[in-house]
Amino acid sequence: MPTADRISLNTATVREQWSLAECIEGCQRHGIGGIAPWRDKLHEMGTAQAAKAIRAAGLEVSGLCRGGWYTAEGALTQGVRDDNRRAVDEAAEIGAACLVMVVGGLAEGSRDLAGARAVVEEGLADTLDYARAAGVKVAIEPLHPMYAADRACVNTMGQALDICDRLGHGIGVACDAYHVWWDPELKRQMLRAGPERLLAWHICDWLVPTRDLLTDRGMMGDGVIDLPLLASWAAEAGFEGLHEVEIFSALDWWTRDPDEVLATIVERGATVC
Amino acid sequence: MPTADRISLNTATVREQWSLAECIEGCQRHGIGGIAPWRDKLHEMGTAQAAKAIRAAGLEVSGLCRGGWYTAEGALTQGVRDDNRRAVDEAAEIGAACLVMVVGGLAEGSRDLAGARAVVEEGLADTLDYARAAGVKVAIEPLHPMYAADRACVNTMGQALDICDRLGHGIGVACDAYHVWWDPELKRQMLRAGPERLLAWHICDWLVPTRDLLTDRGMMGDGVIDLPLLASWAAEAGFEGLHEVEIFSALDWWTRDPDEVLATIVERGATVC
Repeated sequence: MPTADRISLNTATVREQWSLAECIEGCQRHGIGGIAPWRDKLHEMGTAQAAKAIRAAGLEVSGLCRGGWYTAEGALTQGVRDDNRRAVDEAAEIGAACLVMVVGGLAEGSRDLAGARAVVEEGLADTLDYARAAGVKVAIEPLHPMYAADRACVNTMGQALDICDRLGHGIGVACDAYHVWWDPELKRQMLRAGPERLLAWHICDWLVPTRDLLTDRGMMGDGVIDLPLLASWAAEAGFEGLHEVEIFSALDWWTRDPDEVLATIVERGATVC
Repeated sequence: MPTADRISLNTATVREQWSLAECIEGCQRHGIGGIAPWRDKLHEMGTAQAAKAIRAAGLEVSGLCRGGWYTAEGALTQGVRDDNRRAVDEAAEIGAACLVMVVGGLAEGSRDLAGARAVVEEGLADTLDYARAAGVKVAIEPLHPMYAADRACVNTMGQALDICDRLGHGIGVACDAYHVWWDPELKRQMLRAGPERLLAWHICDWLVPTRDLLTDRGMMGDGVIDLPLLASWAAEAGFEGLHEVEIFSALDWWTRDPDEVLATIVERGATVC
């Protein structure tokens, strides 16, 4: 169970309430050891200033969210390639442990899932070339299969690691309990990833019932995921990074006082994760 | 693309509008070749009378929905075993091609997914013994991973077929496009199932956006699933049964004139499936 200094705050968790500057201050106030900004918050603050503030606060950066979305324009375009290269530069500038990739789903009007997956792999290869030179690790985040159409067509750890096998060094996975907890292959694939490729460990909880496909994720302990068990598998796989808390919660946590949110994260981290 | 006589109507598709007797008459009126009753509709009509009416209408029975729910009371109870045996008897009485199993999710308050899966396998083994003697095929339906907590902890074709491998003859899978379309392993697992174990082929469509986890499924052609491709894999696997249309749609198809629903099913079957 992680103490506060082993927890990282993904800014999406308080995205409706706080700027990145406020998140950084909040992490300091609550003794949280790391942060994982989303790019919109980063751009709002300015990457150079954010990098400076994060360093000054003594926070680790468990990841930058997010690159990817390779299928946004159907075929892979120069615009998409360039945006991902900018994301790599930003990840390098803030010293992120990895650049987290939400790879994109089906293009508008398309039913060609195999085609989308091919575009994604082509895009990842392009970004990876650039990221290797920049010394940034690329982390594919397999998203829950309910997002296959509209957010990410990489949907299991096994599928993500097959891509990593083909693309070679410098690329791994960001494993989010919410997306993968159901997978009968999960433990085996986490061990397959190993310390070199298990680049991030994201936590929140699966609520029953889940009222919205995207924005009804739960605080750790409020749902059905056996987070201590999954964390033990991450440890067994050699993962030594932070436990990054990322909760999309339009109906609950996004409506609360963010200091209450962070206090709850710290408390739950110590008891149920 | 199936003509009407190669389509089966799962009664859930018009469950808010029609009794089983009305479904049987509706299938005849629209030239639909088969039916798959849910047990509540069957009990309402009476199994013996339903069997007689289905035979008189010349309809095939592509399946009986549903047995399973082995985790309903935590550990496997005699009550759950008995209910599944009654389902086997009913499937035999109406001449169903298979008894479709929605196996159940986590028990109330539990986070023990591996434990739930063990209970399910124990339950399936019990039902299978009885079903073999009754000459009824048992079909595990892997449900979409978004139902792992509350409906079924068997979530991929590969996982279901591993169970079949362990339990032996007389058990296979009911493959529903809605639940499995996203799976990178799908084609390989359908071929692995083969004609002996691919016992049912269910169709509907995945809508973008999906507004509800359970009851916002789409009419074939209205979503993003490449149904002709998936049907070609079913055919390649040796499946020769009916294309069973099962659409949970509280916001749309359950509110329409059921004759319009059936006419649309026949039209879409001929063009997009």
